[in-house]
Amino acid sequence: MADDVTKYLLSEDRIPTHWVNLMADLPGEPLPPLNPQTKQPAGPQDLLAIFPEQLILQEVSTEPEVEIPEEVREAYKLWRPAPLYRARRLERALDTPAHIYYKYEGGSPAGSHKPNTAVPQAYENAKAGIRRITTETGAGQWGSSLAFACGIFGLECEVFMVGSSYDQKPYRRSMMETWGATVHRSPSQLTQSGRSHAEFDTGSLGIAISEAVEIAAQNDDTNYALGSVLNHVVLHQTVIGVETIEQMGMAGEEPDVVIACVGGGSNFGGLAGPWLRRNLREGATTRFVAAEPAACPTLTKGIYAYDFGDTAGLTPLMPMYTLGHDFVPPPVHAGGLRYHGDSPLVSALVHEGLVEARAYRQSETFAAGMQFARSEGIIPAPEPTHAIRAAIDEALAAKEAGEERVILFGLSGHGHFDLSAYDAYLAGTLEDPEFSQEDMDRAVAKLPQGVPAL
Amino acid sequence: MADDVTKYLLSEDRIPTHWVNLMADLPGEPLPPLNPQTKQPAGPQDLLAIFPEQLILQEVSTEPEVEIPEEVREAYKLWRPAPLYRARRLERALDTPAHIYYKYEGGSPAGSHKPNTAVPQAYENAKAGIRRITTETGAGQWGSSLAFACGIFGLECEVFMVGSSYDQKPYRRSMMETWGATVHRSPSQLTQSGRSHAEFDTGSLGIAISEAVEIAAQNDDTNYALGSVLNHVVLHQTVIGVETIEQMGMAGEEPDVVIACVGGGSNFGGLAGPWLRRNLREGATTRFVAAEPAACPTLTKGIYAYDFGDTAGLTPLMPMYTLGHDFVPPPVHAGGLRYHGDSPLVSALVHEGLVEARAYRQSETFAAGMQFARSEGIIPAPEPTHAIRAAIDEALAAKEAGEERVILFGLSGHGHFDLSAYDAYLAGTLEDPEFSQEDMDRAVAKLPQGVPAL
Repeated sequence: MADDVTKYLLSEDRIPTHWVNLMADLPGEPLPPLNPQTKQPAGPQDLLAIFPEQLILQEVSTEPEVEIPEEVREAYKLWRPAPLYRARRLERALDTPAHIYYKYEGGSPAGSHKPNTAVPQAYENAKAGIRRITTETGAGQWGSSLAFACGIFGLECEVFMVGSSYDQKPYRRSMMETWGATVHRSPSQLTQSGRSHAEFDTGSLGIAISEAVEIAAQNDDTNYALGSVLNHVVLHQTVIGVETIEQMGMAGEEPDVVIACVGGGSNFGGLAGPWLRRNLREGATTRFVAAEPAACPTLTKGIYAYDFGDTAGLTPLMPMYTLGHDFVPPPVHAGGLRYHGDSPLVSALVHEGLVEARAYRQSETFAAGMQFARSEGIIPAPEPTHAIRAAIDEALAAKEAGEERVILFGLSGHGHFDLSAYDAYLAGTLEDPEFSQEDMDRAVAKLPQGVPAL
Repeated sequence: MADDVTKYLLSEDRIPTHWVNLMADLPGEPLPPLNPQTKQPAGPQDLLAIFPEQLILQEVSTEPEVEIPEEVREAYKLWRPAPLYRARRLERALDTPAHIYYKYEGGSPAGSHKPNTAVPQAYENAKAGIRRITTETGAGQWGSSLAFACGIFGLECEVFMVGSSYDQKPYRRSMMETWGATVHRSPSQLTQSGRSHAEFDTGSLGIAISEAVEIAAQNDDTNYALGSVLNHVVLHQTVIGVETIEQMGMAGEEPDVVIACVGGGSNFGGLAGPWLRRNLREGATTRFVAAEPAACPTLTKGIYAYDFGDTAGLTPLMPMYTLGHDFVPPPVHAGGLRYHGDSPLVSALVHEGLVEARAYRQSETFAAGMQFARSEGIIPAPEPTHAIRAAIDEALAAKEAGEERVILFGLSGHGHFDLSAYDAYLAGTLEDPEFSQEDMDRAVAKLPQGVPAL
């Protein structure tokens, strides 16, 4: 078993100094978000009620790189640089000539990649004199990351947690409270958006976003933070990809394919973005695979159109793949992938054919997660088991073809709060909901009218 | 917030090559374990039914250092070297001139220091041709670590889990099963030791040990593994202390006091052992504090005597502090510290006055854990909150005295599976059971007869 474990570590002074802004690389002018009332292009001023100016500048920036504030790099030191591993034991279990690498983001205090953006968002809000941040959370990864980051910069944090998760995942709630956040079950009675739903409705991310945005818009000392989808969130996550480029250099290999799971798109964009730039600017020929759940197949079955980011229609309209803004995905365990839309940036990459999207059923992702846990030791969260599934399929295809393919995937978080899902898998009770033609017809019927076609 | 986070990382080639065997440093001849039937000194042959020869040789070794097999160092690479942090934000929150450092072992796949010994134990058993390992587990930290390690070396793993934890902590069970282990609720109907208790008895570590030992003793292809207490287990954990000595050198500081929590003693011995050798051999004057729960105060209120390691009296009699081998500690959340006895090695250190033991009530440890989580970001397991309590008290004493004291403590694991305990703390429902005079009288009455007095 010599050479069984190979990890590539960077020292703290290799924490990136700049984020990579892929907006600078997209062909053509970026499609603007639209004001939800007027349906005209929304300017930075439309966002000032809920975001600090510095984040809005990042949101609309077309500069190729954005400097990371020193205070943010300092906080990143708590868990960054994150390790890159070569999965030699998994390779052996698959008997594949492929080389499989994974970038592990589960070592952060909250256990996923989410603090990469929670920290700069909390920092910019604190610097702007904001007292409180509201947000939504599904499974709790994002809410706990923001709770942690608000603690660092002395901000209050108020989280609207999707009802079904609030009821089923009390430990993520305890984690947020341990870090000092206030957690509400959504739909709540605290907002107009919440009160328009039945009190014990299981909720959705779309509803929870509406609640958090409503409170931020109504209070001058309160801003809102989103854990994915927006450009500045994808931007912050590119620390993942920048570090990984240096680490693959240490390994002396070039990835043939880069894989990550996609919910709102920031995890995928964060890992893939810096590698994609190498394709676009330096002629590299890496393939990119975005892995999503068959139960919420935004990129593979959604419509590319302007749609709202939330259920109540309070957010700007964004150009993206969507399953309809009031679609409530079935309760698969990958709560972080249960979102009707997707990052405009990642949507554009798929639309341009630069990224291939694939959808996987829940049980095949857990089978992959299980095989990974037993060979590599780390129990993955349900979300990255989608990336693991795609990576294993690539490795098996390489074996079939007799190719020494180099595969890099993002292991975005650990599954310590998801063991009931593994339990269901082991007990054979895991369900495999899929998106139906009826869901599709409904999505088409619900698309906003009076907006430009894409 | 510049310089807010300081962590000291070692590269993989700094994983220690040798464990430190403190048995070589103890004054006088070591007190032998006694055969449970004859009560005569037990030799290596008494242990062959349940342990592989190589681990027995480590158990009785008086060599000052023991080489770490290459295969074990290779597996250690999955999470070692572990980081040392300076807790600058905690120092600021306490407004203390003390410098506080902590060694974090929660980055291992199982989330604690336990894999440091699970890996070499699984390795030596696999090398000896053993097919299956049995063990007990309380809160599940040890059982999940052994399940993970058995997976690495292709061994079956069978875990007897203390009934109360089995019922209350299903996720640790799922974790063990995800890694391929079989988990039984203890007391079970599978063993004579188990059947002598009521079927739905909440169980204890002592009973679970009896069950696991019984099965190992009866099957040639099956051995037993213990997660603490024994010399070879403490030996394996000294990788913690050896790394920490190098890291404190990077920080350019000498600890005035080294603190760790104590259940069976391997976490404490693993961190403190290498530092203690510097006191004994090089004239260093570091103080040592062993932190334990007031509900199970083995070192502070126990009797120094020969006693069994398990409830049924199947294990050798060991010279140690004990609360009586059938004592069932109250169900405090620090499940890993609920053991009636303690490592003979750590017991001897306390008996010789080389280590000071302190007991803490549950609520004061959680208050410390909460303050730590909010300043340092990591949510600690209930066990190391005892060390954090002691470290904070030392830091406050340093403030009182106006001293720039250097404090080093062991953060042995994260609290991701213990958030219900934090929930209870936040809700104000945490209980503070203490050891009573009645418990004391019972312990004295239950001590084995016909053994040498200590």
